[in-house]
Amino acid sequence: MERHFDQQLGALRKNLIQMASLVETAIANAIKSLIERNSELASLVVKSDEQVDTLELELEKQCVDLLALRQPMAIDLRFITAAIKITNNLERMGDLAVNIAERVIPLNQEPQLKPLIDIPRMATITQTMVKDSIDAFVNKDTALARAVAERDSTVDSLNDQIFRELLTYMMQDPANITRAVHLILISRHLERIADHSTNIAEEVIYIVKAKVVKHRSTSLEEIS
Amino acid sequence: MERHFDQQLGALRKNLIQMASLVETAIANAIKSLIERNSELASLVVKSDEQVDTLELELEKQCVDLLALRQPMAIDLRFITAAIKITNNLERMGDLAVNIAERVIPLNQEPQLKPLIDIPRMATITQTMVKDSIDAFVNKDTALARAVAERDSTVDSLNDQIFRELLTYMMQDPANITRAVHLILISRHLERIADHSTNIAEEVIYIVKAKVVKHRSTSLEEIS
Repeated sequence: MERHFDQQLGALRKNLIQMASLVETAIANAIKSLIERNSELASLVVKSDEQVDTLELELEKQCVDLLALRQPMAIDLRFITAAIKITNNLERMGDLAVNIAERVIPLNQEPQLKPLIDIPRMATITQTMVKDSIDAFVNKDTALARAVAERDSTVDSLNDQIFRELLTYMMQDPANITRAVHLILISRHLERIADHSTNIAEEVIYIVKAKVVKHRSTSLEEIS
Repeated sequence: MERHFDQQLGALRKNLIQMASLVETAIANAIKSLIERNSELASLVVKSDEQVDTLELELEKQCVDLLALRQPMAIDLRFITAAIKITNNLERMGDLAVNIAERVIPLNQEPQLKPLIDIPRMATITQTMVKDSIDAFVNKDTALARAVAERDSTVDSLNDQIFRELLTYMMQDPANITRAVHLILISRHLERIADHSTNIAEEVIYIVKAKVVKHRSTSLEEIS
């Protein structure tokens, strides 16, 4: 019985890692489709979301089944309730990757507005946050989780900076407006992905330390 | 024991309703501060978020305690796991109300860009969705929950329409750009609030019917 429970927990962990890996790929491809102006890749990202959604439903079922059938205590209970929330965050991150890809497609139909510098920089930091938050979860590494949460303010500042720069592009020439708005929203989507990584990192700290670190700072949800 | 458990479930339900009522007020005041150009009210919305965050933490603790100490089965288990997710959605809705209020403050420092027609319309529908999703939860009313989910596409269309209209304002005069971008983002925040109401409605259907209706349609997450 005990061993069977461990196997089920292992299966849950494996599915979570698989879902995280799908979401990481979706984010990486969404960014790549923007930088390389590859609309085919962007369409692929949109299509791949179905897999993420399927895994989400499976994971939710696994969590509820484990809670119902096993009645776990303490650390296992915390792991499972955190898994429900991590799954939700991953699903939203997958959606945000789709949102980015959906803006890349119309952007690619027009000439490039400007060479992209800050958005790729922001994307690199965000992707590291996504990866590290999942690694922190897999390895129960609270130091890594804390490092993720700390990087969130850098992403917020970059988003702010990108927003202001694109505003000036719009003011200079109305022909820039549509493309600039797409880029502003892509930057916002990235900032939201970083927020979700921070949520995951905070869940990891919660699992390990049973100590809620959310709402330490209102800056996490401040914007653009 | 049984009776005590029912009391604890009742307390959880009561806190959820209180949190929902705070979030409903925050959304209503954020919209009011926009329409009536009342920056003081907008600042009040920003400040009130602390209460929502405090309630979120309390609710999460209640849910985990109930799971750990009571080991509930079937319908009660579903109710508690759904409560974890509803709490998360409410917290995000509260943040989005703050995001709206934060944009109202700079908007009010400039003359009004245009008479607002579609945003208040969208806000009215969204607020009804928020209220109905909570009522559906309190009364386990799946018909009402379904009606909420169905209205989501109307909000998506309005968001789309507002986006296009504001783009033309930006094209006409660069002096409109900053205000138009704020309004585009306010419209997007409203659309996200409607999405979260839809999530809550789907959780209600899940609690009652134990049948997951999420991902029925990709249109729920399509954008602006």
